[in-house]
Amino acid sequence: MRWVLPDHIQDALPAEAEKLESLRRTLLDAFRAHGYQLVAPPLLEFLDSLTTGAGQDLKLRTFTLVDQLSGRSMGVRADTTPQVARIDAHLLNRSGVARLCYCGSVLHTLPSTLTATREPLQLGAELYGHAGLEADIEVIRLLAEVLRLAQVPASRIDIGHVGLFHALAARAGMVPEREEALFDLLQAKDVPSLREFVADVPEDVRAALLALTELYGDATVLDEAARRLPQLPEVGAALADLRALAAALGDLPVSFDLGDLRGYHYHSGVVFAAYGSASPAALALGGRYDRVGQAFGRGRPATGFSLDLRELALRLPDAPAAGAILAPLQGDGELAGEVARLRAAGEIVVSALPGHEGTWREAGCDRQLIRRDGCWAVEALQGE
Amino acid sequence: MRWVLPDHIQDALPAEAEKLESLRRTLLDAFRAHGYQLVAPPLLEFLDSLTTGAGQDLKLRTFTLVDQLSGRSMGVRADTTPQVARIDAHLLNRSGVARLCYCGSVLHTLPSTLTATREPLQLGAELYGHAGLEADIEVIRLLAEVLRLAQVPASRIDIGHVGLFHALAARAGMVPEREEALFDLLQAKDVPSLREFVADVPEDVRAALLALTELYGDATVLDEAARRLPQLPEVGAALADLRALAAALGDLPVSFDLGDLRGYHYHSGVVFAAYGSASPAALALGGRYDRVGQAFGRGRPATGFSLDLRELALRLPDAPAAGAILAPLQGDGELAGEVARLRAAGEIVVSALPGHEGTWREAGCDRQLIRRDGCWAVEALQGE
Repeated sequence: MRWVLPDHIQDALPAEAEKLESLRRTLLDAFRAHGYQLVAPPLLEFLDSLTTGAGQDLKLRTFTLVDQLSGRSMGVRADTTPQVARIDAHLLNRSGVARLCYCGSVLHTLPSTLTATREPLQLGAELYGHAGLEADIEVIRLLAEVLRLAQVPASRIDIGHVGLFHALAARAGMVPEREEALFDLLQAKDVPSLREFVADVPEDVRAALLALTELYGDATVLDEAARRLPQLPEVGAALADLRALAAALGDLPVSFDLGDLRGYHYHSGVVFAAYGSASPAALALGGRYDRVGQAFGRGRPATGFSLDLRELALRLPDAPAAGAILAPLQGDGELAGEVARLRAAGEIVVSALPGHEGTWREAGCDRQLIRRDGCWAVEALQGE
Repeated sequence: MRWVLPDHIQDALPAEAEKLESLRRTLLDAFRAHGYQLVAPPLLEFLDSLTTGAGQDLKLRTFTLVDQLSGRSMGVRADTTPQVARIDAHLLNRSGVARLCYCGSVLHTLPSTLTATREPLQLGAELYGHAGLEADIEVIRLLAEVLRLAQVPASRIDIGHVGLFHALAARAGMVPEREEALFDLLQAKDVPSLREFVADVPEDVRAALLALTELYGDATVLDEAARRLPQLPEVGAALADLRALAAALGDLPVSFDLGDLRGYHYHSGVVFAAYGSASPAALALGGRYDRVGQAFGRGRPATGFSLDLRELALRLPDAPAAGAILAPLQGDGELAGEVARLRAAGEIVVSALPGHEGTWREAGCDRQLIRRDGCWAVEALQGE
């Protein structure tokens, strides 16, 4: 093959592109009905805006370019969430709640897993300006609702709280670089390296950090956490939040994973991940990121989620292709009106360009518009 | 402002993003009804695939990146049309006609005009596999139809034919580099430089090249062209094509511009540009590009058009914002059902998170859901 694409980069051919478009519309319509207003930040920004407040991981995944107009470094966005936080903090400047949503491609220098794309089609919803748990409850419910509408319902929604990790790291008196290294080890669930790393950390914090990797399951995990984690105010507050969520979201398939920090580069509080039944990979990630707004000069509370529509589309069967109607290129004066009527009724009507007999089934036609007894009629496609 | 965007790069805030989404759906639905199947080529490709068969101009407008996986040069697409030609030639491999469409962002290193964006939202339709004028007629009619549906009807559709230029350049015996330089001068309508450039070209061709810049107007221009251009077979064929289009498209506001080569880097035959009434900039450009398929190993005839949805959205007034209904966060057992019913009926229903009294109008609410006489009722928003 001479015209190969780069690894982890794909075309979406008609069956997939149609699924993506249909999912996009379903999810954006649901966001709209819940009051989330669509925004479209650019693919390109100056590098410092794109990666402010983000972790090293996001910086490494961002393609950089030189701006020929300014000479400055630009990046192609690897994540839309910080851009939407910039819009809330800097442009909308609302005093109350802002609900925003978006859908667009992002690019990654390297794929995040062996099978991941480097061009996810990221779709998400974000709620700004409300610090209370009502906002977390709203976005988790919204996520469950849009996955249901997409016909890929969540079989499990894991909830965690980044505040537990930060409280323990602060208790251990770690400098930021060391805290980041510890975060990465927990993210990777690399328990042997974690043990080594915390060898010289005070015993209670050390035991608690190791306990985080084991604290997952139903709401009883929260009781176990209260026993095994040190009784710090931040730990108590985080566990109280999680208990309140367990109570409020009892109708959803909620479970808890207190050591799960995957993908939460800039998150600061409640975090969550939704899983489907078909695959161990998360369908969507979300949570609080109150710090990002601060980086943009306005400390607004923020929570939301995002997902990759391509990943979601993979979980859906191809829709049966809608058959098209082949119409003659020329006919009497009524032909054009009949074609327009069929198209307005949702039919696909294809013009029979001359000289392509025998190829119209390949082009998706299963019926034809034909003159019978002085009327135009739709019949099964013949002679193809 | 600390968080400025690069010049010629913009956010789309809710009013604009909503317009873009609505235009996108209207136009893609019209394409679908005419049998154009959606595809979504990637933002990134290896540079040689992206710029094969394209002019120097497109190469200079393409951002280049290094692929960390392969070490090869990649580009961010500056134009989707060659990618769609690659999909037709290389992946779909149909023996008959293929009708394809697409919508997605492209990036340009430099803006094409003083006011142009560097991130157009390119939308287009392409028809492969039919060399006859019926295909040109179909795509020009489709363009007129989608502009009408977008409420930005074409006030003028200029038609030209790149074959006239190529016939004259061949007659002058120009090497490709010189032909490209001449093309650029004609594109720029730089008549003084053009005169200088063709000073040593045989008299009949020189007069004809200069005449191209004057041959624009209604169909009588075609008669004038027949008198002023040399009687070469390719010239006669091109003028016959244009006459046939004039006859077939008499109901559209068609005019002719035989020297207009703007933007037609890879075009090979009939070309066209649609203009609206409000601005001298073209709304859409299109035409034949039979050569691009050859570059991808399969010489398929091709014609189509593309436009920038952002540019189209600029010509439209903002839609009046749809007012939202504010719903209490908690209520009786009937509240959730009533909210769901309103949302399913197309209403935007926003949850009243506590503590934000006085800010809901800012968030777009103009009505509220309220309990009256044992029923939930929608009333004008009070006390905000």
